[in-house]
Amino acid sequence: MKPFAFSVEAQSGRARVACLFTPHGVVETPLFMPVGTQGSVKGLLPKDLKEIGSQILLANTYHLLLRPGPERVRALGGLHGFAGWRGPWLTDSGGFQVMSLGHLRRIDEEGVVFQNHLDGSLIRLTPERSLAVQEALGADIVMAFDECPPYPASRDYLKASLERTLRWLERSLKAKTREDQALFGITQGGTDPELRRLSTEETLRFDLPGYAIGGLAVGEPKEAMFRIVELSTRLLPEARPRYLMGVGHPEDLVAAMGLGVDLFDCVYPTRTGRFGSALVPEGRLNLKNARFLEEKGPLEEGCDCYACQTFSRGYIAHLVRAGEMLGGILLSLHNLRYLHRLTEEARRAIREGTYGDFARAFAERRFGKEVPRWFREALAAGGHW
Amino acid sequence: MKPFAFSVEAQSGRARVACLFTPHGVVETPLFMPVGTQGSVKGLLPKDLKEIGSQILLANTYHLLLRPGPERVRALGGLHGFAGWRGPWLTDSGGFQVMSLGHLRRIDEEGVVFQNHLDGSLIRLTPERSLAVQEALGADIVMAFDECPPYPASRDYLKASLERTLRWLERSLKAKTREDQALFGITQGGTDPELRRLSTEETLRFDLPGYAIGGLAVGEPKEAMFRIVELSTRLLPEARPRYLMGVGHPEDLVAAMGLGVDLFDCVYPTRTGRFGSALVPEGRLNLKNARFLEEKGPLEEGCDCYACQTFSRGYIAHLVRAGEMLGGILLSLHNLRYLHRLTEEARRAIREGTYGDFARAFAERRFGKEVPRWFREALAAGGHW
Repeated sequence: MKPFAFSVEAQSGRARVACLFTPHGVVETPLFMPVGTQGSVKGLLPKDLKEIGSQILLANTYHLLLRPGPERVRALGGLHGFAGWRGPWLTDSGGFQVMSLGHLRRIDEEGVVFQNHLDGSLIRLTPERSLAVQEALGADIVMAFDECPPYPASRDYLKASLERTLRWLERSLKAKTREDQALFGITQGGTDPELRRLSTEETLRFDLPGYAIGGLAVGEPKEAMFRIVELSTRLLPEARPRYLMGVGHPEDLVAAMGLGVDLFDCVYPTRTGRFGSALVPEGRLNLKNARFLEEKGPLEEGCDCYACQTFSRGYIAHLVRAGEMLGGILLSLHNLRYLHRLTEEARRAIREGTYGDFARAFAERRFGKEVPRWFREALAAGGHW
Repeated sequence: MKPFAFSVEAQSGRARVACLFTPHGVVETPLFMPVGTQGSVKGLLPKDLKEIGSQILLANTYHLLLRPGPERVRALGGLHGFAGWRGPWLTDSGGFQVMSLGHLRRIDEEGVVFQNHLDGSLIRLTPERSLAVQEALGADIVMAFDECPPYPASRDYLKASLERTLRWLERSLKAKTREDQALFGITQGGTDPELRRLSTEETLRFDLPGYAIGGLAVGEPKEAMFRIVELSTRLLPEARPRYLMGVGHPEDLVAAMGLGVDLFDCVYPTRTGRFGSALVPEGRLNLKNARFLEEKGPLEEGCDCYACQTFSRGYIAHLVRAGEMLGGILLSLHNLRYLHRLTEEARRAIREGTYGDFARAFAERRFGKEVPRWFREALAAGGHW
């Protein structure tokens, strides 16, 4: 297949299974992408990521720009050679970190100026510079430099910002030189449907190999977020991958996959793991709770990950309390496997045309009798409830 | 074979290859035992330890007594079930940690009182209590409760201490109830040959399944340490395993294996790895040094470990500088594999009767032209130089 071809293979309501072809391999969607912020998914070996079903990793342009620097990564073989993950990579544009990490000093038409959090120096990041850094890093999928406005933001700010992001997208495309990388555009517009429609329609004029839904999961209510996801997947073309950025809570994945989202990323499963929590169908277990010290069963009954196949909750709770790094490692491994299993089960249900049954079974374990309205409405809009 | 049988299979000078049979599998010596202080070798999965050639792990009675407590470990299947390492385990007696961690409050004929470093409470540890804790932990090899005096210590103190350790050994044997655990005795006497001989000869009267050389590597000069190792392995019976406690520097292993030591343990390879250093034939690389950021080669050319097969020095140096836990994990993995390879190569040389060649080749890379006198003298005493 031609690189970046995207072939939809099955549908169930608005949910779909597809294959995305990249120069470093094919990925099957819907799919969660583990985050390797500084070029490593914290504490996990690439061989273990492969074993649990990871297909594509994400790295952060902001962090790698500061350390070790893009030229060092390029000289060591790009991300594929540098970080020992020979499968596909995606890099973000750096825009989100510049703003979310609070180091932003100035934003103007040209780009942003931010303070390097390591040495205090001022660094300028522009669409051209972001693209150049991402070309040096060498990911298969690169993202256009955008502004992700805070929530809430005024309608005037959102509109000016999304229009600037569109001009930045145009500059990103002009700056692009590598044929073996796909540039995805990012839609903005906050939770305002009219602005989101404007941003999406204008972004679509660039006819890109993929589109991301940006600016969500930044503090807005779930109802507002999913109304925008619903609108976005309605506007975005069937024949292109759709990536919902920064989303990794299991219930959000189930709702968004039902609406036709294909790709997700978030530090949530690994961060919550390092902080001592396990994702399970019922929600989240805090292994710091003393009761787990006595429990003989695995983190999750029936899970096929190495942590669940090898260790008891009691042992992992001990590691967490004792401050042993292995605790966070095992929880990260399990949590990623949990999300990978969730998308594998979703793909199976989509192929069988039973995504609604899958979503209901998920909701029953996750929420019991009190399924939240936003979840039901999203699933209903996807044709599953 | 009967549990704890020890069969010497080959000799080269005083160095020997042997098999030690335990209820959880056979271990081939000489061998380095990774330390899993709190029931985990920091940051490493049991499957990876198995892959790099670990055969038996050590856990610390002191740490597990405090947290999670011996009864919890027992209820979760003993160390073999608890920690996911189904092969042989060895536990120390807790005596060394009580003293070395500086929490000792009182030592008398009955035992020691120390302050729990987690909650400040006072805890009594006696030979009987140490044995009971070790029986709950369930290791294959357990150690008699001993006192490891500081260096330097007066001759009078050393003598009184070693005599008390002998009385504690007698009490340990009386307290022992499990048939599926071997109790090793520990010789003391510091670096005083006469006291060491006394301690060794008196310990041998108990006809134990194995003997440890204790109280060394606590600050004494190498010359003094190896004179005592030489004396000890001369006095200890051929037909029993000899364990040199707390020693893990590669050059110390090569010298001690040459004198007929069979077992070693030390946190050195994993601790120095977490601190950013790699063991290589030439010594130790500090990956924090900026020059490594540009280096494309592996930590050690020719090493078969996952870290060396997958990653460049440049990447690992980046991880160390960026504070990524994967840096310490990869260095720990490599450093343990380095020591395992060292003992594997030693075993091969012993089987071929060429231990002297092996030791000379090691010394040439490690020391260049300036081979230290203690090293040459130890090898000469072992019949290899």
